[in-house]
This record gives sequence, C-alpha cells and structure tokens, in this order.
Amino acid sequence: MNDNILKGNLLVAQGGGPTAVINQSMVGVVLEAKKYPQVEKIYGAVHGVEGIVNEAFMDLTRETLANLEAVAATPSSALMSTRVKPTAEFCAKMFESMKAHNIRFFFYIGGNDSSDTVRIVNEEAKRQNYDFRAVHIPKTVDNDLVINDHTPGFGSAARYVASAFAGINYDNRALSGVYIGVIMGRHAGFLTGAAALGKVYEDDGPHLIYFPEKPFVIESFLADVKAVYEKYGRCIVAVSEGIQDEQGEAIITKLQDNIEKDAHGNVQLSGTGALGDLLVAEVKAKLGIGRVRADTLGYMQRSFLGCVSDVDQKEAREVAEKAVQFALIDNKDGSVVIERTGDYAIDFRLVDLKEIAALTKHMPAEFMNAAGNNVTEAFIKYAKPLIGSGFNPGARLRSPMVEPILKK
Amino acid sequence: MNDNILKGNLLVAQGGGPTAVINQSMVGVVLEAKKYPQVEKIYGAVHGVEGIVNEAFMDLTRETLANLEAVAATPSSALMSTRVKPTAEFCAKMFESMKAHNIRFFFYIGGNDSSDTVRIVNEEAKRQNYDFRAVHIPKTVDNDLVINDHTPGFGSAARYVASAFAGINYDNRALSGVYIGVIMGRHAGFLTGAAALGKVYEDDGPHLIYFPEKPFVIESFLADVKAVYEKYGRCIVAVSEGIQDEQGEAIITKLQDNIEKDAHGNVQLSGTGALGDLLVAEVKAKLGIGRVRADTLGYMQRSFLGCVSDVDQKEAREVAEKAVQFALIDNKDGSVVIERTGDYAIDFRLVDLKEIAALTKHMPAEFMNAAGNNVTEAFIKYAKPLIGSGFNPGARLRSPMVEPILKK
Repeated sequence: MNDNILKGNLLVAQGGGPTAVINQSMVGVVLEAKKYPQVEKIYGAVHGVEGIVNEAFMDLTRETLANLEAVAATPSSALMSTRVKPTAEFCAKMFESMKAHNIRFFFYIGGNDSSDTVRIVNEEAKRQNYDFRAVHIPKTVDNDLVINDHTPGFGSAARYVASAFAGINYDNRALSGVYIGVIMGRHAGFLTGAAALGKVYEDDGPHLIYFPEKPFVIESFLADVKAVYEKYGRCIVAVSEGIQDEQGEAIITKLQDNIEKDAHGNVQLSGTGALGDLLVAEVKAKLGIGRVRADTLGYMQRSFLGCVSDVDQKEAREVAEKAVQFALIDNKDGSVVIERTGDYAIDFRLVDLKEIAALTKHMPAEFMNAAGNNVTEAFIKYAKPLIGSGFNPGARLRSPMVEPILKK
Repeated sequence: MNDNILKGNLLVAQGGGPTAVINQSMVGVVLEAKKYPQVEKIYGAVHGVEGIVNEAFMDLTRETLANLEAVAATPSSALMSTRVKPTAEFCAKMFESMKAHNIRFFFYIGGNDSSDTVRIVNEEAKRQNYDFRAVHIPKTVDNDLVINDHTPGFGSAARYVASAFAGINYDNRALSGVYIGVIMGRHAGFLTGAAALGKVYEDDGPHLIYFPEKPFVIESFLADVKAVYEKYGRCIVAVSEGIQDEQGEAIITKLQDNIEKDAHGNVQLSGTGALGDLLVAEVKAKLGIGRVRADTLGYMQRSFLGCVSDVDQKEAREVAEKAVQFALIDNKDGSVVIERTGDYAIDFRLVDLKEIAALTKHMPAEFMNAAGNNVTEAFIKYAKPLIGSGFNPGARLRSPMVEPILKK
C-alpha cells in the first residue's frame, strides 16, 4: 500500500438539465466509490455547484443499496441541479467549502456547460496547489458533447421521441391532417432525428424533419408540407426547437417580444408552445389545410416516468464506474468519453477536460439528407441501438378491401 | 337451430378520437364474432361512418390471429376514424350501403358523439324495417360517458398523464420553478385529476389541479400559485384544456381570434400551446417568478406508443366481446356499460342507446376539493386501479445532511 495515496472524502454532483438516467450515473459513482478504502465519506452536493458553495452536502454513505437502486431507476437529478455557471469568485468559494470538508475526489455529472465547470474547478485546484481529482461524467439529452459517440441520457430521450412519433403516426393516419411536433435540442438535431426511429412503412411519419444545423426557410418548409400532403393526404413534421434562419437567427426569436435568457446567455426554447403555434398559423394561412396541429413535446422528453432505454441505463451506470476508476486507480483528471467499438459495442476512455468543455457537437452532414428535411439511413443505423430493447413499433391491418356494390 | 335466426355480415367501425386501446375493442369484436356461424363476413369500415357511405370496407375475415393481436396492442384506430356527425341524409346513404352489403350486425366503437350516431342509425333501421342489431362500444380518454363507471381508453391516458407528472415532479424538484401542464378533457376533469396518481410525498406535485367543472378565476389561480411557491419554493399545476370562467366561457377563447370548430360545434382545444403560454405570462407578470414553464401534453396522451394500462387493455377487449354477445346471443341493441362491482372488479350490462347518446358525465363533487383546486382521496381511490399494474413512482434519496463547517 502506497502511503502517499490520496485519501479523503468524495463528492458527486449533478448539473444542467435532468435526464432519465442521470441517477444511474450518480449511483454508479457511489457504489464504485465504496470499493476504495481511501474514500472516507461519499457526499452528494445538493443543487450542483450551488450546493458546494453553500455546504449543502448529503452523506450518501448512509444510503441503503435498495434505495440507491430505486433512485437510479428514477428520472431526473435526485441530488437536484443548477444552471449556475461558476465565476472566478464563485470557484474560490467552492474551494473554501471543499477544502473545509476534505473533499479530494470530485465527480460532476453534466453536459458541456458542466464539463466547463469541472475544467474551471480543476484549474483552480492546481492554482491553489490543492491535491484532488476531478472527473466530468457526460450526460445530455441533446447528445451534443464532442468526441463522444453519444452521451448518456440521449438514448432514453430518443426512445421517448421515437415512441411519441410512432404513436402520432397512427393517430394522424386515423384522423388525417398536418401535425407538427417540436423537439428539444438547442444546437444539435440528434433528438429531432430520433423522431424517425419508429418508422416501419415508407408512408409512415415523420415525413419531414428539420434540424438546427440547416437553415430553416419558411417557403421551403411550406413547399415540403404541400408536397407530402398531396402525396399522402397527411403530413407529420418533426422540428427542432432550435431551428434558425439563414442568418442564424432562431425562428422562435422572431415571435417573442421578451426573450428570456439563462445564466449561460441561452434563449428559453422549452416550456412554451410558441414555435409550434407559429408554424401551424403559417401552414393554415398559406396552404389552406384545415386540420393542422402542433405539440411541443416538452419536459416529458427528459423526465417521463417509465420510458427509458435499457442500453442508456447500463451505459450511464458504466460511465460513472469508469470515472471513479480513472480517478481512484489511475489518479487522473478528465472527462470520460464513450467510443463505439462495434455494432453494437462501446468502450470508455478519459480525455482532457479542455477537449470537451463548452464545445458543441452537431449532426454530421451524412446524418441529414441533401434537402435538409430528413435523416439518412446512416443516422438510423447510428441511433437505433441507443433506444434499447423492447421497442415495439406496432402493426397495421392487412385485410383486402371489399368490392364495392353500389359504386360498381 | 332456429331458422329465423338473423344471418348476414358484421360491420365494425371506430369513431372519434383514437385511444391506446381502441384496437383492443376492434379485435375483440372480430375474434368473438368468429365464433358465431350466423356471421358470414366480418367487415371493418375505413374511417368510421364515412367508410360506410363510401363502401370502404376491409374484409377482416382475412386477418391472421397474430396480426390481429399485434394491431390490438397498437395505439390509435387501425380502421381509421372520422369526426363526421351523420345527418338524416347521411344516414340514408349509410343504409343503402349496409343493405347492399347485407350487413346485419353493426358495432361502433366511440365516445358520446359516436353513441349518438349508433342511436340515429338504429332508429333509421327500424324506420326502414331493416332487421339488424347495432351496439355501441364505449371508448374515450375523457371518461365522460354517463352510466359507465369509467370508459376504455381512460386508464391508459390516465397512466400517461400520471407518468408525465410523476417525472415532471422530479424534474421540478431538481430545477425549481412554476410548471403548468395542460391536459386533454373538454368538459370533464377526470384526465386532469389523473395528474395526481403518481404522488408519493406530501410535497410532491401537482400541487394544484383545475377542472372544467369548476369556474377558473385567474386571481384565485395566482393566489394559489403564490401560496404553494412560498411554501415549497416550487409549484406544479395541472390544468384542463377546458377550463372556463364563471360565465362558462372557455379561458382559451379569450385568447384566440379565430376559433376553429369541428363538425360537432366543438372549439379546438388540443394541438396548440396557447392556453399554457397565457397562464405562464400571467404568473410571470403578476407574481414576478422567474422560471415559469408550460407544456401542453398533446396527442401523446391518447397515442403514445408503449404507455398502456393492462387493466384498460383487458377491459377494452372484454367490452367488445360482451357487445357481440349481447347482439348475437341476446339479439339486442344498445350500449355496453362498465359497472364497478368490487375493489377492484367490474361487470358489463347493456343499456338503451338513448341513455348514453350525446350526454356528458362530469367529475362528481366528491372527487374535487372544496376550493376546486385539487382532487380528493375519493378520486385517487376511484382512479388508481384503472392505470394498471407496474406503475413505479420512483424514489428519493434519504441521506442525512452533513454538518456545515464554514457556516457553523
């Protein structure tokens, strides 16, 4: 046993938007950490970095295994979350608190804003010559972390979106019209693309898919809808909340007088039906179609109870176990990334926080068709394994039509 | 064998809004009908009464059992639906078509508008001295058919709403604020009340529930939200799309300039986020709360793939089997109703179509609290069995907080 081995308390925290599997990662940290004698106490910061500054720590060493597993299967962040982006002053306060509590291992589960927080924290630690390990554990329903093949949380959200559109497709066949579903994903269209994962037949919806990565031109959109409606007598559209015009202005900002922004300077896109209602008004006014409806899929995409990908659950657990191993066995800092090593198999590696922090991954060109209004087969092949097992897309009747008698 | 026994073809149709289990009823008719030699062919009308007029019949006798069962497990109306309300002239055309195809047994699966259609059709049959049996099979996510304890389709929609709010509750705990979820149900608040079925702890949301049966007073709503927000630091509201003011005017009609109405004279309430957005604007403006979000739960409530109550599935199948038995064994017309006979057990009986048709059931007074802003224990006891088995509401961490060091 090395006497110089780093010993002390461990802290886990959850940041940013919740996902269906972010608690799998939190529980993965706790259960793996219990195997290392140099970890004295396992703390959870309540409300992310806010909890660190406020010394709001739960003693997770006191949880039972049964309750940890029950929490792991529960959507959203059991330790609560935060949208705070630490400033230099905020970081100084975090360290005062962490040092006072002898925290030597820090695991922050979050998206690219959270990975940037881990980077700042880690640089502050080095500046203060405070010996500790800090590892970022990826999560985001947007799937927009660079280097990662995909991120925990995306698969379950994709399963929700695929299930919603597969159901909507049957609904829209029964009572035809134009349906527009607005999907989360500020800068990345992966989750919007997932709307296509429940398709079986050529004429199944969604028939059109619009991404933040491609300029959204209202005239092209209307022409697309018209063409589909004339062909099938109905049209299902999946559209990202983050669609932008050719000048990069978000379509939704053209609507709202008072744009709400968060601490990261991001415009509020979720929690409002405005974008869907605008697009409905355009289709009704310009195409003269009677039945036009929009739904904004909303927070159910990341938090709906009971819609979860088993693949996503497993990976969210594993990525956290690996994070603890990288810190405790290898004595390293960084961000754990997921690599695809087979069809379908993954592995994990640790990268420098600078490679992840505050960067955004976008849909690669080969995942979108040339017209920018649908996904490609390459996207389906990429995303399908992530939504997990037991996805049953349903079935249609296959009976022949009866010969008419009166109209013969 | 009675030589005077009614013989001929059987027709099944689906009307109104789809549900997650309406295909269970359709398949229930087909499979039960196959047991009676006097039923020659089993037809399905495509797009409800429209299909009858247009002679658009599928020959369901040619389906395989495996495909019928796969269709039964698929949400929405596999035979397609319609919102057409037959006029006298329309009924005359329906009869011309039905007589031409020797249809002697007619089963129409639908809500109160559809039961009225069956009533009109049946009276037309008697007027024309055409010997046939017509039975209405209930379905509606709104749960608003009179006499019925509940209706097939409600349990699955209620499970969706309960799952959505249980997830939203965890999400809202993690990132607190005011959340408003708008729920289907034009005249009846049953589905809105289902938002409470996933609650475990006293401080779990939804904290406030508003029904179409109680006048919605914006000032009272704001006072309610303020009180909850001050108590818990967050507030989750479930509100029916059909909330009305004291004069009976729908809150949503105060917003929209061009109100869309369907063939039954109903205002469009679903497929728009307008009501939620209005309520958000009120809370932000009058209470000065920063993070206020609204979701309109939308068509997912009735069509989401994979969220279904096993109790609802079973009952939707049974009610159709019973319909066929009442027509084929008892030689009777009517509407099949569900009665609760135990805790929890049900049975079925046939009532006259006049008792059901075009009437609306409302939330009884004992299901809503005196303030009109929440459900009662009586409602929970009533609705909980209907969402089926395997509903797991999740779990919270139970760890003690760590003693502060710096703030001591």
